[in-house]
Amino acid sequence: MSNTHAPFFPDVDRISYEGPSSDNPLAYQHYAKDQIVLGKRMEDHLRMAVCYWHTYCWDGFDIFGAGTFGRPWHNPQNDRSAADLKMAAAFEFLTKLDLPFYCFHDVDVVEASESPEALSSNLERATENLGAYQEQTGKRLLWGTANLFSHPRYAAGGLTNPDPEVTACAIRQIRDCLNATHRLGGENYVLWGGREGYDTLLNTDLTRELENFGRFLSMVVEHKHKIGFKGKILIEPKPHEPMYHQYDFDTATIYGFLSRFDLLGEVHVNIEPNHSTLSGHSFAHEIATAVSLGMMGSIDINCGNYQNGWDTDQFNLDVRDITLALVELLPSGGLDTGGFNFDAKVRRQSSDLHDLFYGHIGGVDALARALLSAADLIERANLKDNKDKRYAGWEGDLGKTMLSASSSLDSIANQASAQKLDGRHTSGRQEYLENMINRSLV
Amino acid sequence: MSNTHAPFFPDVDRISYEGPSSDNPLAYQHYAKDQIVLGKRMEDHLRMAVCYWHTYCWDGFDIFGAGTFGRPWHNPQNDRSAADLKMAAAFEFLTKLDLPFYCFHDVDVVEASESPEALSSNLERATENLGAYQEQTGKRLLWGTANLFSHPRYAAGGLTNPDPEVTACAIRQIRDCLNATHRLGGENYVLWGGREGYDTLLNTDLTRELENFGRFLSMVVEHKHKIGFKGKILIEPKPHEPMYHQYDFDTATIYGFLSRFDLLGEVHVNIEPNHSTLSGHSFAHEIATAVSLGMMGSIDINCGNYQNGWDTDQFNLDVRDITLALVELLPSGGLDTGGFNFDAKVRRQSSDLHDLFYGHIGGVDALARALLSAADLIERANLKDNKDKRYAGWEGDLGKTMLSASSSLDSIANQASAQKLDGRHTSGRQEYLENMINRSLV
Amino acid sequence: MSNTHAPFFPDVDRISYEGPSSDNPLAYQHYAKDQIVLGKRMEDHLRMAVCYWHTYCWDGFDIFGAGTFGRPWHNPQNDRSAADLKMAAAFEFLTKLDLPFYCFHDVDVVEASESPEALSSNLERATENLGAYQEQTGKRLLWGTANLFSHPRYAAGGLTNPDPEVTACAIRQIRDCLNATHRLGGENYVLWGGREGYDTLLNTDLTRELENFGRFLSMVVEHKHKIGFKGKILIEPKPHEPMYHQYDFDTATIYGFLSRFDLLGEVHVNIEPNHSTLSGHSFAHEIATAVSLGMMGSIDINCGNYQNGWDTDQFNLDVRDITLALVELLPSGGLDTGGFNFDAKVRRQSSDLHDLFYGHIGGVDALARALLSAADLIERANLKDNKDKRYAGWEGDLGKTMLSASSSLDSIANQASAQKLDGRHTSGRQEYLENMINRSLV
Amino acid sequence: MSNTHAPFFPDVDRISYEGPSSDNPLAYQHYAKDQIVLGKRMEDHLRMAVCYWHTYCWDGFDIFGAGTFGRPWHNPQNDRSAADLKMAAAFEFLTKLDLPFYCFHDVDVVEASESPEALSSNLERATENLGAYQEQTGKRLLWGTANLFSHPRYAAGGLTNPDPEVTACAIRQIRDCLNATHRLGGENYVLWGGREGYDTLLNTDLTRELENFGRFLSMVVEHKHKIGFKGKILIEPKPHEPMYHQYDFDTATIYGFLSRFDLLGEVHVNIEPNHSTLSGHSFAHEIATAVSLGMMGSIDINCGNYQNGWDTDQFNLDVRDITLALVELLPSGGLDTGGFNFDAKVRRQSSDLHDLFYGHIGGVDALARALLSAADLIERANLKDNKDKRYAGWEGDLGKTMLSASSSLDSIANQASAQKLDGRHTSGRQEYLENMINRSLV
Repeated sequence: MSNTHAPFFPDVDRISYEGPSSDNPLAYQHYAKDQIVLGKRMEDHLRMAVCYWHTYCWDGFDIFGAGTFGRPWHNPQNDRSAADLKMAAAFEFLTKLDLPFYCFHDVDVVEASESPEALSSNLERATENLGAYQEQTGKRLLWGTANLFSHPRYAAGGLTNPDPEVTACAIRQIRDCLNATHRLGGENYVLWGGREGYDTLLNTDLTRELENFGRFLSMVVEHKHKIGFKGKILIEPKPHEPMYHQYDFDTATIYGFLSRFDLLGEVHVNIEPNHSTLSGHSFAHEIATAVSLGMMGSIDINCGNYQNGWDTDQFNLDVRDITLALVELLPSGGLDTGGFNFDAKVRRQSSDLHDLFYGHIGGVDALARALLSAADLIERANLKDNKDKRYAGWEGDLGKTMLSASSSLDSIANQASAQKLDGRHTSGRQEYLENMINRSLV
Repeated sequence: MSNTHAPFFPDVDRISYEGPSSDNPLAYQHYAKDQIVLGKRMEDHLRMAVCYWHTYCWDGFDIFGAGTFGRPWHNPQNDRSAADLKMAAAFEFLTKLDLPFYCFHDVDVVEASESPEALSSNLERATENLGAYQEQTGKRLLWGTANLFSHPRYAAGGLTNPDPEVTACAIRQIRDCLNATHRLGGENYVLWGGREGYDTLLNTDLTRELENFGRFLSMVVEHKHKIGFKGKILIEPKPHEPMYHQYDFDTATIYGFLSRFDLLGEVHVNIEPNHSTLSGHSFAHEIATAVSLGMMGSIDINCGNYQNGWDTDQFNLDVRDITLALVELLPSGGLDTGGFNFDAKVRRQSSDLHDLFYGHIGGVDALARALLSAADLIERANLKDNKDKRYAGWEGDLGKTMLSASSSLDSIANQASAQKLDGRHTSGRQEYLENMINRSLV
Repeated sequence: MSNTHAPFFPDVDRISYEGPSSDNPLAYQHYAKDQIVLGKRMEDHLRMAVCYWHTYCWDGFDIFGAGTFGRPWHNPQNDRSAADLKMAAAFEFLTKLDLPFYCFHDVDVVEASESPEALSSNLERATENLGAYQEQTGKRLLWGTANLFSHPRYAAGGLTNPDPEVTACAIRQIRDCLNATHRLGGENYVLWGGREGYDTLLNTDLTRELENFGRFLSMVVEHKHKIGFKGKILIEPKPHEPMYHQYDFDTATIYGFLSRFDLLGEVHVNIEPNHSTLSGHSFAHEIATAVSLGMMGSIDINCGNYQNGWDTDQFNLDVRDITLALVELLPSGGLDTGGFNFDAKVRRQSSDLHDLFYGHIGGVDALARALLSAADLIERANLKDNKDKRYAGWEGDLGKTMLSASSSLDSIANQASAQKLDGRHTSGRQEYLENMINRSLV
Repeated sequence: MSNTHAPFFPDVDRISYEGPSSDNPLAYQHYAKDQIVLGKRMEDHLRMAVCYWHTYCWDGFDIFGAGTFGRPWHNPQNDRSAADLKMAAAFEFLTKLDLPFYCFHDVDVVEASESPEALSSNLERATENLGAYQEQTGKRLLWGTANLFSHPRYAAGGLTNPDPEVTACAIRQIRDCLNATHRLGGENYVLWGGREGYDTLLNTDLTRELENFGRFLSMVVEHKHKIGFKGKILIEPKPHEPMYHQYDFDTATIYGFLSRFDLLGEVHVNIEPNHSTLSGHSFAHEIATAVSLGMMGSIDINCGNYQNGWDTDQFNLDVRDITLALVELLPSGGLDTGGFNFDAKVRRQSSDLHDLFYGHIGGVDALARALLSAADLIERANLKDNKDKRYAGWEGDLGKTMLSASSSLDSIANQASAQKLDGRHTSGRQEYLENMINRSLV
């Protein structure tokens, strides 16, 4: 398949690096993809992706009003020709942004499908087309996912639905979409459980739903191995919305769930800053937790604002906040099969096609700046040195004894008593360390 | 030891049940301790406790101002005579409330102690006195706990402190306090990790701290078995405050932590409504989660208000909300060794001694009303019937096949395809069920 | 016009009062419309209304998924026949609920309108039909309002839009809808400024927008007088959503705005509990503030849940919370032209037509119970007596002197010094008073 | 009085500007006080102050634990010698930071005072000492304020207390402290109403309390004029904490209050970022609102974190967020008599004396960096140009006609109809503008 559609963004050339002093709003100031940072190309560190849903599917509607965008590739029926135009626009945009990856839901890349059968066959066709575009452009698939939340049948969940007929439809979609992802050489496969949760406990069999969830997630893992898919299976922490409560509340909750169903090491997390803050955590906390527990998968980069209590999915320009997350992430080896997917949307008022570029360019540059800052901090090693010093006691005699296999409450308490131990607080130096972060911001 | 102190509440008699039409503010309208509900005495269902810290220790200070209470049993030095008067007041109050249990931290029941040694020996003495009071009044200990957050040494945590000397002091306190709890026939032992967490990741070795936490918690469990303590070891979910982040964020987080350190079944949770809502959950959610995961321990009953973002520890008068929690709790068998501890404080402006009675009476009656409502709902069984009907498909052929050991993504997807399954949503009837709750409220 | 459409709810009869012991889910347990409470019929106290948008227009879509309801009066084009069926359903439902009032937006009662012209003439026709239904059923209009947020043109606001062409369209809608409301004998006219605010200050001329808002609101008031509309003009506090920030943040903010543009006494507030809590206030606070400042208009009764940070518009079953609001409202004379409009929607999962009845019945009964409780509290007068006693000092010599016209900082400070005044805190008795509320709950 | 006390910070020299490449943690990287920015010296733009309470008074206690700091100038009795040492430390620290201003509460600068009389005379003495230090060091007073929240008598408020005896004490403190501020050449006088609000409406006469508040605030203004104080009277928006609700909720609320009591122009606001975010607003919003309404006074610079729901008063290192606020502030002329007071505290774990320097240095540099960025944005004028263009329609014929004195709903609606106006949305370009902010960050 070749892109024979007239260009959708005719007045925009490929976005290129022009350096910090450029005042071209359609250039990168910081993202120089081939620049080596901590021994690796920037592009290979960040592995950035554009998502289908916000960028090409969304028409600007919100819960209080109709679409404002009038995209040239949309039509009201969302028929096959619209799906084809959308795909053309997607690869033109991605190519002009000069980013390596994209992400999609099954329903994003196909026309409106009247039945599960239609969806299966439409996805088959779309997969072929995507493959052709990939070949033509060199772009790659960061991950695919099945949409188990938009169809009315999923109002009470997909894998956790009270009705097995609904769950069977969900599983069919997952099977098809995981196969498609595999065929396209996808790096990961994601399950976002937006409706896997409950609106009220009064009608919910929590125990049963979680057990079903565990059982079917195990089948996803088995299927992955069966077809030889080498990517990671990811689930995405989010505390709520659209449901009152979502089972994948945060990374720590998911750890417990995976542990319970013996899926640790098989399933990882796709962390999103806006979801992190909605669950009462910082972005860095979620990253640090995933790294510490060996669950790190990929990142849906975006942010909310701190005054509105729903998922606003804005482009994340908070370089300091991203730096704090990268400082947790990079020492562990970085993203492996994961990447930074822009799960971010321009505001409903940003109705021009150019706004799509501005949004992504800002997001790309913020990641690049943060990468440079984090690399600087890691190379100077002050943070690490400070931590080593703070915990040095645990490498000393007392610490080692306390942690030895033969220790007990009594042995430690008796030692404390015998030695009249009377431990004192020493400064945590938080402000000193925070200043170090600010000083690293380029 | 006999209580030779003049009474502190001379004008209040033992609070008794007078029925719903009473307008005596110093009587129970709903709590009739011997009334049989769901086959058990109310007192045995609710197992209510008064806590030492809020009720007898706190002088009404807050972060912006000095104490307002001027309790007759306090003195500025908090010396031994003050500790003795406080204990006399505690047992007089508990007796007059006619509730069966109390709870304490080590530092609550002793005078100000200059050193770990002094604390050990003062606790020894206080334990003897408490035992004497128990014998004299028939009151019992719901749980004891070591305070690992008020002394400056614990600014960076107790069991998760960067300095092993501090942790050794913490362990000594736990050992002593667990022994004391055992000696007093306590029903449980609690660890509240108010400082087990971090203020900034920049100075925190998350991985090490959690590993230490797991190791030392295992020692607590070993010690419990060693001394033959039959009660439960409980940890208490709370997301933050005073720390920016607390490791025991919520019940699901704790599940993962216990699973990781092989402590499931050995450690349970002490759930608090105000902590639940601070972590983004309803009280009922935390109970349901604990029940579902086999972690239910005890309850620190209180509430916050929904406009202020810190732990306000108010007496919980929200009968509907408590009913929703009891509907999750009671079918599993109820509280076992746990109870309802009033971890609630009168407002700083409620500076009269009588206010202590009003606070507790309101809290007791709210629990009793909720118990009656929950019992009514359980006896009618409509909630259960409705749920059974909603999930009936999982007991049918399709459901059973899907969950059978031989199922796979492919087998289910193929069946969905072959049978042209096209599952449809059916109403969750939330409003119908919510009305049922309201109609149960007495 | 006569309702010749087959009934939409054929198996539901008129909902009637059956008393607290009824277990008919399609009956009122507490709402006995003719029962006299505080000297007035329940119906006349509560003046309840069903709203068009949630109950008849919404198809169950949310931001993550398509409609689940499949209402028999909907069609995909939303053409004239759909509008007519919807109106038939609306008056059948209202009649069966046996409530006196309804509310609507202009776009709710008409078919999809391609242009401002079409909307004007469609509204003209719909107004005639509504008038005929009113005559036929005896139902009345609590308020009408123009929808200035759903059409894409209003993405940046209606009366505060950066583009005067958009504002002119908004004003035309308001003029037409206020005229229609007047013609239908509406009791009030509401402006909900869902898009009157901003998404970012970076593109917003705050000063200009607020001045335009003030100027055009003044015109609305002038128009009301010109046409002889006797109802109240109401604006509705809401802090945000869909905008990042809404100008009508809360009642106190609106007071300042009205004061600035000399509109006090001419414009009142329509308070909604879910908006109250989103702005960091209790429902009772907003009512108390409006009463104290002479701004009380009407109430959009609903609630959110306290764990989700957006407007969930649930039926409010929290009898205690409503009681606290009524205790503030009733002593001031109650609702005058206002009423309780159910600005509440059944959950997206509640997809049966019956669920519409369950939702409203629960809401109606909660209001009735709260009315009975509040009446009991007001008749006993304990709350008032307690307050009078608490503030008695301000009726004494010192208080009167301090507030006299001749007092000054110096005169009061000198008196304090001369008399060695050393004021002491006395208990606020919060728990005692809270118990009194709980004891009033039926 | 001369500072004869041994230095408290002997190993720290005066902090000086060393430029962005310095890695001296005890130097400024960005704050070059004499550098000219937008035509004014940095020092004169920012007018920075160190506060007494967090920096010299606080011992590190929090609601869960005792003080951790062990300051060399503290003693347990807080006697006169401690007060004198504290003052010596304060001026040494301020001099070493090389900042021009300080701020204090009356109780901060005196010893513990047993009675109102003692406080009056201790303040008299302290004022003399402060004056001597000012002369000796050249430092100046940004503002003084009376502490009406820490003494138990103020549990239910100062100016809004139910008991006039308490209010008389409050007024005495205000009179004395305003006089002292005047004597010291203070630039402003602040009233922080931390207890002016309520814990429950059930015991609160809202109407009376607000009227008293208005009356006494008027007296403060009269007194200011009487004594010839030229500074501004400021009140400080805060939504809650320690009270459930505080009357000075936010800037817009205060506007209405001042308008009601005819105090506009006489009283201005002291805005704090952490209070802004607690009330559901951005810092920039509160600044923009104050500027737009002519209420801008001064700034208590700090921040919270977005995960904890109480006032954490951290040093604000968020350069982007401060830039957004400065972009609203500077075009209006900046701070006049106001300044940036560091109402920020080092964390309780930051227990070294050096941490006080790190905290302030980070805060100073963040302000300086933000000033440079905001100046750059203002000089380029792109933000302003973009706004002018967006609102240009209001300067055209249609806009002017609509806003003319003779316009009415009918005239505008008729014009819209005649001209078939059908206004369309145009992009708000939010992402473009946000990128512009990020690109300005030096």
